[in-house]
Amino acid sequence: MENMTLCEANNFPLTPITFLKRASECYPNRTSIIYGETRFTWPETYDRCCRLAASLLSLNIKRNDVVSVLAPNVPAMYEMHFGVPMTGAVLNPINTRLDAKTISIILRHAQPKILFVDHEFVPLTREVLRLLPFDDSQPHPLVIFIDEIDSTRKASSKELDYEGLISRGDPSLSTAASMFDVLIEHDPISLNYTSGTTADPKGVVISHRGAYLATLSAIMGWEMGIFPIYLWTLPMFHANGWTHTWSVATRGGTNVCIRHVTALEIYKNIDLHGVTHMSCVPTVFRILLEGGRTNQSHRPQPVKVLTGGSSPPAALLEKVQQLGFQVMHGYGLTEATGPVLFCEWQEKWNRLPEHQQMQLKARQGVRNIILADVDVKDTKTYKSVSRDGKTTGEIVVKGNSVMKGYLKNPKATSEAFKHGWLNTGDIGVIHPDGHIEIKDRSKDIIISGGENISSIEVEKVLYEHPKVMEVAVVAMPHPLWGETPCAFVILKKGETNQGDRGEGDLIQYCRENMPRFMCPRKVVFFQELPKNSNGKILKSKLRDIAKALVVDGDDVGSKKIDRGNVDRISSRL
Amino acid sequence: MENMTLCEANNFPLTPITFLKRASECYPNRTSIIYGETRFTWPETYDRCCRLAASLLSLNIKRNDVVSVLAPNVPAMYEMHFGVPMTGAVLNPINTRLDAKTISIILRHAQPKILFVDHEFVPLTREVLRLLPFDDSQPHPLVIFIDEIDSTRKASSKELDYEGLISRGDPSLSTAASMFDVLIEHDPISLNYTSGTTADPKGVVISHRGAYLATLSAIMGWEMGIFPIYLWTLPMFHANGWTHTWSVATRGGTNVCIRHVTALEIYKNIDLHGVTHMSCVPTVFRILLEGGRTNQSHRPQPVKVLTGGSSPPAALLEKVQQLGFQVMHGYGLTEATGPVLFCEWQEKWNRLPEHQQMQLKARQGVRNIILADVDVKDTKTYKSVSRDGKTTGEIVVKGNSVMKGYLKNPKATSEAFKHGWLNTGDIGVIHPDGHIEIKDRSKDIIISGGENISSIEVEKVLYEHPKVMEVAVVAMPHPLWGETPCAFVILKKGETNQGDRGEGDLIQYCRENMPRFMCPRKVVFFQELPKNSNGKILKSKLRDIAKALVVDGDDVGSKKIDRGNVDRISSRL
Repeated sequence: MENMTLCEANNFPLTPITFLKRASECYPNRTSIIYGETRFTWPETYDRCCRLAASLLSLNIKRNDVVSVLAPNVPAMYEMHFGVPMTGAVLNPINTRLDAKTISIILRHAQPKILFVDHEFVPLTREVLRLLPFDDSQPHPLVIFIDEIDSTRKASSKELDYEGLISRGDPSLSTAASMFDVLIEHDPISLNYTSGTTADPKGVVISHRGAYLATLSAIMGWEMGIFPIYLWTLPMFHANGWTHTWSVATRGGTNVCIRHVTALEIYKNIDLHGVTHMSCVPTVFRILLEGGRTNQSHRPQPVKVLTGGSSPPAALLEKVQQLGFQVMHGYGLTEATGPVLFCEWQEKWNRLPEHQQMQLKARQGVRNIILADVDVKDTKTYKSVSRDGKTTGEIVVKGNSVMKGYLKNPKATSEAFKHGWLNTGDIGVIHPDGHIEIKDRSKDIIISGGENISSIEVEKVLYEHPKVMEVAVVAMPHPLWGETPCAFVILKKGETNQGDRGEGDLIQYCRENMPRFMCPRKVVFFQELPKNSNGKILKSKLRDIAKALVVDGDDVGSKKIDRGNVDRISSRL
Repeated sequence: MENMTLCEANNFPLTPITFLKRASECYPNRTSIIYGETRFTWPETYDRCCRLAASLLSLNIKRNDVVSVLAPNVPAMYEMHFGVPMTGAVLNPINTRLDAKTISIILRHAQPKILFVDHEFVPLTREVLRLLPFDDSQPHPLVIFIDEIDSTRKASSKELDYEGLISRGDPSLSTAASMFDVLIEHDPISLNYTSGTTADPKGVVISHRGAYLATLSAIMGWEMGIFPIYLWTLPMFHANGWTHTWSVATRGGTNVCIRHVTALEIYKNIDLHGVTHMSCVPTVFRILLEGGRTNQSHRPQPVKVLTGGSSPPAALLEKVQQLGFQVMHGYGLTEATGPVLFCEWQEKWNRLPEHQQMQLKARQGVRNIILADVDVKDTKTYKSVSRDGKTTGEIVVKGNSVMKGYLKNPKATSEAFKHGWLNTGDIGVIHPDGHIEIKDRSKDIIISGGENISSIEVEKVLYEHPKVMEVAVVAMPHPLWGETPCAFVILKKGETNQGDRGEGDLIQYCRENMPRFMCPRKVVFFQELPKNSNGKILKSKLRDIAKALVVDGDDVGSKKIDRGNVDRISSRL
């Protein structure tokens, strides 16, 4: 039994690149990409990726080299998810919503050999390059321009451009080079920054093996059948589009690429191409609701939507479902190569009232198929909490899709991997039916008189109020209780604060719908909430505002909170 | 990038055992097994498997030891697919339809430490043990009795029985033993004999990694959603039930176990438990058709059936579909840990006439998601054939689910892996749409006047004849043409040979429906076709009969056929 050896026939590195070759052979007539008037088939996409890889090799790109890209969801961005790793290099898709300074910090840290830039981001890139030091120890990356794909502009002979690489690349070269002979499945495939704003950039390094398995688990968790028509509303730079860059190829689907995510673009493309699947953060639901001139419920099949990133309130889910979208809720981390939990639907829930269904749907769910384990641990004892839906602890994750670590940051890496798990910094419970529900980011928990208050729980109740459009609840210092909840509210269009009576009304509403100690003592009305480049509400900014709001300024409470290391992972999907 | 190390948090051996623990935690209230009046939940099944593993460890079972089992599809058989590999040992499920002599050859070759025997096979086992040599160099395996699960009989204190192991095993022991610390994912998980009748037993050794990936690919290939109600009509000993032993746990489904596969049992269990999925060889379709008192088409959801093992003729598929079964056709090999190809359905086919749909469905399809490659190679040049649906070659397979090799048979192993592929011995074509269709086993091809005739093509036409129930076509020696087709036919109930006019009628029918050179020159009417223990027609026996039928006995043709090594793989699913 022992002396059986592995050979070419039975041992092959796990990498999502194989899914593309398979698509080109198994789905030769199917459309791989739609972008405006542009159409590709799977054999064409495979050919273009091979050509890209061949050109990169001829530019001296080698195993473990970093190739960065600043681009929206255009075909080139999709192709780079295969073409770059085909050479053994590591793709570094950069969040295009970041400012020049942050991007320059990322580039200094990642040290890419090449930076691909879509034409939309040329001005930004000029600014970025000015911020980069120019010396021999760290030369500037080679910048390659991505023009609009149907542009008739000819690149000058001196200029390197993306389509030039495609047309000059010899497709037989990269396949003949047989990168599989050198590739080890634990090799890095992608480098995704979750934070670059500080002196402590966190570049998540994920592996071919992790990406391969995470892709399969996303297909099964979402039950994505063959031939999905997938609309790219989620940025591909965001955790590689939650692995759907690779999953659509695996399923022989069609990528409907759009440059700008607007209600008009979304509804138009759904109608034009018969979109079946899309994923997005809950912020996009607001776009769908506000621009929802088209009711989707007349469509033969509802559009399946995978959402995550922050907990969608049940009330919001209900409204989006009524528009004809069938939402599945998940939870993931860039550090775990995408989705970790899926809220798998149970038939018996169909018999519950719709509102209750949405509350169940708002839970994060059960772990994906390929993870070794997901647990909720008491933050002090590190023992598993009881599965009673009440006892809270930190969500921890273990498995092959967990990152290799943070690039050049062993301290943050070992912090994240303490106790042999990936520690997410998210606080949750496990319900008796096995579903995990996130109660809060550990840093967002409000501790009032020694009691933990989940800011999410308070927000949930406020979302039920008919006048409330958006809400965020944070801790406000309180001389007696240490902390107390403070709510920041955006009212729906047409609603007003009724000459300051609004605050009292909402506090009264809370008193009628939740335990007294959880009620906000302060409600602030805003026109817009501060958000990061991914559309996530910046609670840290709101906490600063709440702190300033305290009249007596006695900030005794916040010292009770152990804020050590709670910032270490900040990259919920 | 290079110095990132793997750790407990991000590296875990790929093994289907993890699916069971996950099911117990994610689906705690769901029924895992139904068997008569017996019911288990997933936590109970997990607990029982841990107890079994603990007891096996206490019986000194160690990594790479073989544990054999002779049992039908009872709960113990299912549990052993997890409990045995949990200890690091290798499960050897033996085909219960084999005779004592063949089983004794397998046991001598596999050298199991333990042999589990279901009560139904106690007499057979006594006979087997008598045939085993008894000496110190190769001691008899320890025999452990599996009683009917609801039996009230108490085992004597001297006797080892399965339920005793379960009740005495300490479930904390096997989990605490933390087999994952020692397990390497390339370790063997199962040993499946595809042939034991000769002096050359072929024990296929598959790995944890291969089983894990094959399980995921079967879920995706068949599009098995969550919570399937899976009826066990396929023997679990047959390539581990095409990996569904593991896939049902992965999906939190329910295993409906039955001891005997009869039409009564099948229809009864479908109705009782709302069966959604089953898999079977096409032979079972005859059982379904003959016992089809219940039309399934009134059911809210048709039962999804995965079939393989031999090509189901389109006419047979059509009849089974009309009964309310939704058939998917696949192709696999024990040597590739189950399904290799799935006939993935294309929406546009829905617009074709039903008969044409069934012809497309009868093709074997496209390769599963996890294989590195599947190709059709010219048998002489070993070059890929053109994808024209006409040029034939041998189907070859490459990937992580391909076996480690044949146990203690390096010659057969290296023969199977020649050219760096698993050579299947099946002859097929690739259609322009990427679908592979098997034309014949290479040894079943009939070579007439230098032309290749696919016996399957001739059978397909004969299956269309309204009086034909079952048919098998083989080569018959012919003095002029070398070989010529000879058809063995079973007529439908009530049909007769019309005083020997039948042969002429059928030959005439063939002449009207296929090229002249392909027409059988001889038709023989049988009551029953010779079949192996898996229900596969024994064409070798029919060839012997056909040879004897030749009056002039001039067997010049068969020498033209190179039959070298075509027997090496004989384990189509």
